Amino acid sequence: MSALLRRLIDDLRCLPGVGPKSAQRMAYQLLERDRDGGRRLAATLAEAMTGIGHCRRCRDYSENELCAICLGGNRDQQLLCIVESPIDLAAIEQATGYRGNYFVMHGRLSAIDGRGPRELGLDLLANRLLEEGVQELIIATNATVEGEATAHYLAELARSADVRATRLAHGVPLGGELEFVDRGTLALAFGSRQSL
Amino acid sequence: MSALLRRLIDDLRCLPGVGPKSAQRMAYQLLERDRDGGRRLAATLAEAMTGIGHCRRCRDYSENELCAICLGGNRDQQLLCIVESPIDLAAIEQATGYRGNYFVMHGRLSAIDGRGPRELGLDLLANRLLEEGVQELIIATNATVEGEATAHYLAELARSADVRATRLAHGVPLGGELEFVDRGTLALAFGSRQSL
Ligand SMILES: [Zn+2]
Ligand SMILES: [Zn+2]
Repeated sequence: MSALLRRLIDDLRCLPGVGPKSAQRMAYQLLERDRDGGRRLAATLAEAMTGIGHCRRCRDYSENELCAICLGGNRDQQLLCIVESPIDLAAIEQATGYRGNYFVMHGRLSAIDGRGPRELGLDLLANRLLEEGVQELIIATNATVEGEATAHYLAELARSADVRATRLAHGVPLGGELEFVDRGTLALAFGSRQSL
Repeated sequence: MSALLRRLIDDLRCLPGVGPKSAQRMAYQLLERDRDGGRRLAATLAEAMTGIGHCRRCRDYSENELCAICLGGNRDQQLLCIVESPIDLAAIEQATGYRGNYFVMHGRLSAIDGRGPRELGLDLLANRLLEEGVQELIIATNATVEGEATAHYLAELARSADVRATRLAHGVPLGGELEFVDRGTLALAFGSRQSL
């Protein structure tokens, strides 16, 4: 096999979920059927890896100093939703009608990994809570042990800035069969049962 | 979402088997965890899409005029294996101990798609059969209707050059359960049964 082709197959494996077999299939298919698409992807990838940084205000990915949401001015400035990662922000934008602002931590508090409030930009967040007239901090960290610990810290931070803190509800996923929901979730959902 | 990030997600979909969800996951994961890997992939992809052509002799992918197999000189020059696509060549190299040469058609005969012998480079093949002292043409086209028709044509071509033509054996795949093997294969395998 061509050395360059072998290198392409190896390098494609930096993509998540791409093993040796699918990397090989991708390389051959691009060469055989879509060289233009491959060239376009190469150019966009190079541009994105270097050009996409973090919005100065919310820390979401942005190729400009301020992202479209922060620049837009049509968001409810009283609502601020804090997430662990940009992909969580994208999921909330795609799934909900939320029209407030965001803050992205790019991680969660973790003593083991040496990530404290400063690494997550929480000094910047504290300033926003004090200066922007935020009324509610919606804490949308993951429902993991570290995510819950981070949520607890953020709730304290909000309280000290006199901002209401809320947390996404736990419960049975839509379409979820009780049989397959984990016990902790089931217990929480049972405890938070609502009248019909 | 950043316009550049959205373009990256769109462009990643030129990869086979990558839908909107996995393209999004790929883009975010590269940005968050492996920008160096992404930059390396971009550079290799650009180089490969432009630099990889066809070996002048066997028509396999090669960034040089002659591929490593054709240049090597340690192959059995009496054996020539003909395949539809470079990925079939790679599969044979990886799975078998074959030490002869190859010829890649980059397709199969198809009246509907306007692919005749010339489009598949079979004039080049005919020259090789006459000039290189080939003793056996191993026809490794796919076991599809068009692949079989192409094999038939190639067998005629070999006969007219006084070269023996062989075809890969049909049969039950290793580990294949008879129950799930298609009828045609089962009939062929039954007809070609061998004594133990
Ligand atoms: Zn922003
Ligand atoms: Zn070659």
